[in-house]
Parts: sequence; C-alpha cells; structure tokens
Amino acid sequence: MDGPEGPAGPELVVVLAEPRTPGNVGAVARAMANFGLSRLRIVAGVPLDEDSYKRALHAAPILEEARRYDDLEAALEGLDFVVGTSGITNLNDKRHVRNALTPAQLSERVAPMEGRVGLVFGREDYGLYNEELARCDVVVTVPTSTEYPVMNLSHAVAVLLYELNRQVPLPHETIKASEAERDRLLAAFDDLLDVTEYPPHKVANTRVMLRRIIGRSTLSEWEYHTMMGVVQRAVKRIRRLEERKGGPWDED
Amino acid sequence: MDGPEGPAGPELVVVLAEPRTPGNVGAVARAMANFGLSRLRIVAGVPLDEDSYKRALHAAPILEEARRYDDLEAALEGLDFVVGTSGITNLNDKRHVRNALTPAQLSERVAPMEGRVGLVFGREDYGLYNEELARCDVVVTVPTSTEYPVMNLSHAVAVLLYELNRQVPLPHETIKASEAERDRLLAAFDDLLDVTEYPPHKVANTRVMLRRIIGRSTLSEWEYHTMMGVVQRAVKRIRRLEERKGGPWDED
Repeated sequence: MDGPEGPAGPELVVVLAEPRTPGNVGAVARAMANFGLSRLRIVAGVPLDEDSYKRALHAAPILEEARRYDDLEAALEGLDFVVGTSGITNLNDKRHVRNALTPAQLSERVAPMEGRVGLVFGREDYGLYNEELARCDVVVTVPTSTEYPVMNLSHAVAVLLYELNRQVPLPHETIKASEAERDRLLAAFDDLLDVTEYPPHKVANTRVMLRRIIGRSTLSEWEYHTMMGVVQRAVKRIRRLEERKGGPWDED
Repeated sequence: MDGPEGPAGPELVVVLAEPRTPGNVGAVARAMANFGLSRLRIVAGVPLDEDSYKRALHAAPILEEARRYDDLEAALEGLDFVVGTSGITNLNDKRHVRNALTPAQLSERVAPMEGRVGLVFGREDYGLYNEELARCDVVVTVPTSTEYPVMNLSHAVAVLLYELNRQVPLPHETIKASEAERDRLLAAFDDLLDVTEYPPHKVANTRVMLRRIIGRSTLSEWEYHTMMGVVQRAVKRIRRLEERKGGPWDED
C-alpha cells in the first residue's frame, strides 16, 4: 500500500455527529491542534459560542475552518477509510456493528494507509446510532472501566489521536549514553570500589547490581557525564589524600 | 518486585497542583472514573463549583472525597513513586528535571510496581515548577505537535490514564474464529469458485487473495458463521439449479 516515497501516513479528519455542547467542540479542536490535525467536519449539532473558543484556545482557526454538513453521509465525502467510535462494546457478537477494535489495533491498521481517514465521534449522550456505525469501515472503542465507561467527547478524541500519534518520538529525543560510556562509568565505579577498599567478597555482586542500575536508568549523555564527574572526583580525591599521608599501608 | 500473588499493579493517585479552572477539576475526576481510579489530591487551587460537578457527571464522589493540601510535599505523603508531568520537553539535556519519558515508557516502568504511584499535574498555564519536577522520581511528557504542545489538563490526565491502562483488554473480547474455521471458510470459497466455473488460471491467485483478506479481517466466531452461511448458501443454490436442469454439461 506504500507509495514510492514510503509510508507517509494518512491525513486524519475528525467528524463530529451532532455535538450538543459548544464547549466540547472547542475542546476537540484543541486536542486536534495538540496532535497536529486541522480538518474538522461537523454534522448538524449546536452552533459554536464563546465557550467553544474559550476551550479551543489557540486552536480557534480549526473552529473557524470547520465545515458543516446536514447529514453524516455528506460529511464522509472524500474520505478513503471511515472509523466509527463507540463507548459501548458489544455484549453480543451478533451486534457486529459494534464489534470494536482497540485504539492500538486501529493504529496498526491505519498507520500504513494513505489518503484521508475519518474519525467519527457521536453525540455526547447517545454516541453514534447503529446505522451510522454500520456505515463505518471499522469501529474503535477505548477500553474503560465497566462501571463508568462513557468518556467525555474531547477526552475520547484526545486518547484516540494520542494513540494514532503514539509511534512519533518526542520532539527532543534525549541522546542516550552509549554502551562504551556505560562501561567507562562502570570502570569508574570499579576504581571507587578499589580505592574505598570495598570488601573483596562483595565486589562481584555489587558490580552486577551497578550494571543493572545503569542499564535500567537509560542515562542520557549529560547524565552520564555528570555521574562520571561525581565518581571520578571521589576517586581522585581519595587517591590524592592517600598519597598525601603516604598511602593506605601506614594508616595505623 | 512482584509479591507472592504476582503483579497486582500499583494504585494510581492523581495529584493536581494548584488547578485554576473548577471545570477542569471535574473533567479530571470524570477521566479518573473512566479508568477506574478514585483517589484525587488537590494542592491549594480553586474551590470546586457547579461547573466542576457538571463536568464530573457520575464521578461526583471523586470530587467529594478529594483531599486538599497546602503544599505539594504534604500531598505526596504515603506515595511510593511520584511521576511528574510536563508539557514542555527539554530543549537542553542539562535541564535534567524535564528529561522526560514517553507515556509508553512510563507504563512499562509502573506496571510491575506495587504500592501507590502518584501522577502529579501542574497548573493549566505554567505546569509544574522546576523545583516541583525535581521532587518527582520521573517526569513524563505526552508527545504532541511542536506548534501547539500545551494540552488541556483533563486531556493530559485522560491520555496518561489510558496509556497506563492500555494493556487491559476490552471488557468483552470478541471470540475469534479458529484457524480450522478459517480453512473451512476458504474451502467453502473453493466450492464457490468451482461451481461458478471460475477461470482456472485465476484460481490460485484468487485463493491467496481470499486467504489474505480472511486473515487480515480477524473474523469473530459469529462473523465466520455468517460468512460460511452466505458462501454455502450460494454454492448449494448453484448446485441445486444445475441438478434441476440436468447439469452444466447440457447447458448449450
């Protein structure tokens, strides 16, 4: 399915079916902006008001450019793949229109697609009707507590966009310390064990423990240099002090 | 780290540092209820109002039982591991207090823990101060658009709780069709190709395509039976019609 340039990923379009709370529409726009989306389509639903813009904050342009449609079918025009959302999972397989994917499963399917993928969210109270879900190519449900499964509309949008965006690394990926650096740090700790006359029968276990800790903590470049500084300073200081008083052998 | 009963997972506690919008606190409570949490701690911040309860909906008990603290240190009492949240990733590794994990990385670390894990969220406008982040054991950031990275408070809570809850299956997992059933369905399609006198040189490719489609669509038990019914009905009907008119050989 990839084009000659490799997978570019689809363009995501949010479709709200009859939203009933103007503030929610604003909050949806904000979540969209947070995840780099811009195209919002609204089927019928309430007019926007001050609360919409207050909750959209810097995402006001998305509200201004949102398109209005009279019915869902019209709002789906030009979309290559349509994802319905449902807060209720099927209690019965036969109600196949609600036979839902998890957001993670959806993300796997959508990632290699090209073209426009529509994410359709229903009314705050009723969600999408069965005939609307039947129109969708797949249905997705966010796994929630069975005691209170109904999410706020904009929360559902935020969670789904987060998941679809999940593989994207943080803008500033921390530069990790290399394996060679981790070894040098471990060697510095060895020096520290040495100069502190660490009990020889405990050295082996302690080295393993240090290696594990250094491994688990996935040090950044800067954290590595800082740790090295700390350990090396300690080692040097001990050595210098030992030299000054003539070495550890005349301690007594 | 697992107890004798195996990993039970930690109890998650949400800590809000000086929330400034009463409605947001209510929305946070709702997101907590959606993901099965109940303990909310609030450091200073605005009093709750009608809007808080309107946005909490069925999560009102969380607001009623929320505990108030004068400062962050007091609010962290009894927590075994403290996670700070930050909307701004470090542009410089040296500002190590913001050297953040992704929510997925956090989830991996937190999953095997026991005891109480606090998730600390800062002010809507400023987030957590550096000295507050320094007090946390780790810092997590939701990867967002660099153009508008600042998420709504309750959206950040919802996304983080979703990720920490991500491994939990949907309440009603669909019963998947078995491999034997998929093979039987493919065999039924073979019959259909056969009775429809499908061009022999195309059969092989079509079988592969059908297998792929059946594989990708991860049919549920019910969908399998439905598909089988459809295909078998077609095959039977064709065979019966052929018999009635004496077989395909005297068609001309």
